[in-house]
Amino acid sequence: MSLNFQLHNTTAPGGRRATLTLPHGPVETPVFMPVGTAATVKAVPQDVMERIGQNGTGARIILANTYHLYLRPGHELIREMGGVHKFMSWDRPMLTDSGGFQVFSLSKLRKISPEGVEFRSHLDGSKHFFSPEHSMKVQIALGADIMMVFDECVEHPATYERTRESLGLTHAWAARSKAYFDEHKHEVPWHEERGGQHQNLFGIVQGGMYADLRKESAERLVEMDFPGYAIGGLAVGEPREVTREMIARTLEWLPKDKPRYVMGVGYPDEIEEYARMGVDMMDCVLPTRAGRHGLVFTRNEDGAIERLNIKRTENARDPRPIDANCTCMVCARYTRAYLRHLFTSGEALSATLLSIHNLAFYLDTMTRVRADLAASPAV
Amino acid sequence: MSLNFQLHNTTAPGGRRATLTLPHGPVETPVFMPVGTAATVKAVPQDVMERIGQNGTGARIILANTYHLYLRPGHELIREMGGVHKFMSWDRPMLTDSGGFQVFSLSKLRKISPEGVEFRSHLDGSKHFFSPEHSMKVQIALGADIMMVFDECVEHPATYERTRESLGLTHAWAARSKAYFDEHKHEVPWHEERGGQHQNLFGIVQGGMYADLRKESAERLVEMDFPGYAIGGLAVGEPREVTREMIARTLEWLPKDKPRYVMGVGYPDEIEEYARMGVDMMDCVLPTRAGRHGLVFTRNEDGAIERLNIKRTENARDPRPIDANCTCMVCARYTRAYLRHLFTSGEALSATLLSIHNLAFYLDTMTRVRADLAASPAV
Repeated sequence: MSLNFQLHNTTAPGGRRATLTLPHGPVETPVFMPVGTAATVKAVPQDVMERIGQNGTGARIILANTYHLYLRPGHELIREMGGVHKFMSWDRPMLTDSGGFQVFSLSKLRKISPEGVEFRSHLDGSKHFFSPEHSMKVQIALGADIMMVFDECVEHPATYERTRESLGLTHAWAARSKAYFDEHKHEVPWHEERGGQHQNLFGIVQGGMYADLRKESAERLVEMDFPGYAIGGLAVGEPREVTREMIARTLEWLPKDKPRYVMGVGYPDEIEEYARMGVDMMDCVLPTRAGRHGLVFTRNEDGAIERLNIKRTENARDPRPIDANCTCMVCARYTRAYLRHLFTSGEALSATLLSIHNLAFYLDTMTRVRADLAASPAV
Repeated sequence: MSLNFQLHNTTAPGGRRATLTLPHGPVETPVFMPVGTAATVKAVPQDVMERIGQNGTGARIILANTYHLYLRPGHELIREMGGVHKFMSWDRPMLTDSGGFQVFSLSKLRKISPEGVEFRSHLDGSKHFFSPEHSMKVQIALGADIMMVFDECVEHPATYERTRESLGLTHAWAARSKAYFDEHKHEVPWHEERGGQHQNLFGIVQGGMYADLRKESAERLVEMDFPGYAIGGLAVGEPREVTREMIARTLEWLPKDKPRYVMGVGYPDEIEEYARMGVDMMDCVLPTRAGRHGLVFTRNEDGAIERLNIKRTENARDPRPIDANCTCMVCARYTRAYLRHLFTSGEALSATLLSIHNLAFYLDTMTRVRADLAASPAV
């Protein structure tokens, strides 16, 4: 058994408390997954990631990006080092994306064919080719607990016709991803040492901002029978009501007994909202990226989320922590005045501390949501 | 009593084990003091600084730079925040330099007069004036346990005549520094809360590479009766034999019952050597600066110090830690392969981890030297 999804409680609005057990351990859901792009959650040491958040249990699952690790240091190097867990010294669950999103957003001179995508590296212009099979090969070498099918990411906005056409490719690529994975899943670096367990390949529902295409995509993927399903192609610039609507309309068609993952969202209030709707997993670069830019999240006395720009002059002599109600190691120790000084002086410690606070804020938000869900009347 | 220097053991070559007790606590000497330029040891969080090194007791004293903090965020702001200890959340001893070294090395368009130095900020070109009195005022606002007299830093190489002439200014400025300090030392932000204790002003022996001028400078400063003495103006490009010779020839003229501090040195083998000669305190940016540039220190099987350039290709697949004999948190967890990946990918975590290793290497070196000195026959 390489994945177990144990539902504990489901509420009337659809939110669920569950335990997702993966080869590298259990994950309490709904969960927010910090992004460790190049096998590092930017500026935050692994031992901090292990104890971040109010209960001190840290992040239970993190992401790494296949595109970045494929280009540097290379998936074969990581395979030789025993897989990405050993490479970065992170012994808890991990998830890799397919590389598709970055191929479509970061790389240059893409040429798409039914076979796959030819592209040039954003680092050095070198030429590469990603097919569903190649993405699987790379992700198996990396060895995350969960890997994702390779799909086409449609630009936003896209017409109904364009989106529908793209779905054909996306579904064909999902089937090819699964076929390759099923044949090669025993090649994961830790296959033997983890008692013959293997990774888990999740499908990705696309369909742009069109509810009927979302339904069609969900049905096609469910037919292929994945152990979990992602909802992709959202938070690409559409209004938030549309994101919410697409999530709600897609969740209807996904099996209730399998984990459901919305990729790349979002603000803290969004992850809370989607978790209460029945989304089990989410990831976003926002807490770390915002931290590097001096933006931190706080909660006011009414519990509403606010954003604080640390570099503002009004923080220069402010002896308060970022958030008086936050129990994170940054709020326990440092003043706004000091954090502003670090940021305006360009000191490296600024990114570290502000990222830690934001990550703790996200993890604490999900801890609270899980407690609420567990205490809500079940249906 | 704001400073107590308790000698435990002095060996034949002059090395001493002592405990230096300051308003913010005790420091076992000989000690290496990490540099926290802008009230942050670059890229290393304070809680790590508190437990770095093999015995887990961390750095016992760190430096901050008066020039940098004066320009940004400003000494009056730091005074309002309770002094630099509270500002950066560091409750152990600290030392500030006078600002002189940076005024002479970093700033533009310096104009030196007997009164002081006019200069332009390296940050924004704004005009400033530092006199001995102003340096004292700034350092009292910062409130480090030890502060330094304001002196002229002669360029290297300098002629005998030029060096001798400069000594006149340096000694006059030392006397003015002391006079201002004695009159204003009760103004330190923590004066009352620390039971009426105050900071300690150290003198600085100059004299370039001329032993007789070093002697003259030492004698003049000893007449002024400081609680500790620094040897400045070394490690400015001269051969290492000259540095050693100047230190040895200066130590002869400094009182044995007071702490002796060599500023701005050096490589790990240098700090070890000078400690065994009788230097009690040293500081250097090297462990953190080298770390940021991918250079780490290791010890080979014979105990000799070697340097490892982490970015070299040969480290790409190396599963070993930086130093198999090092007990630091980086060597306990991360491979050379991973650290090289972080460095070549420009990841912020690289500077943090490599700096932590180098700082631990320096602190461990001094822990070993202190144990050796304690076990050596006394004279």
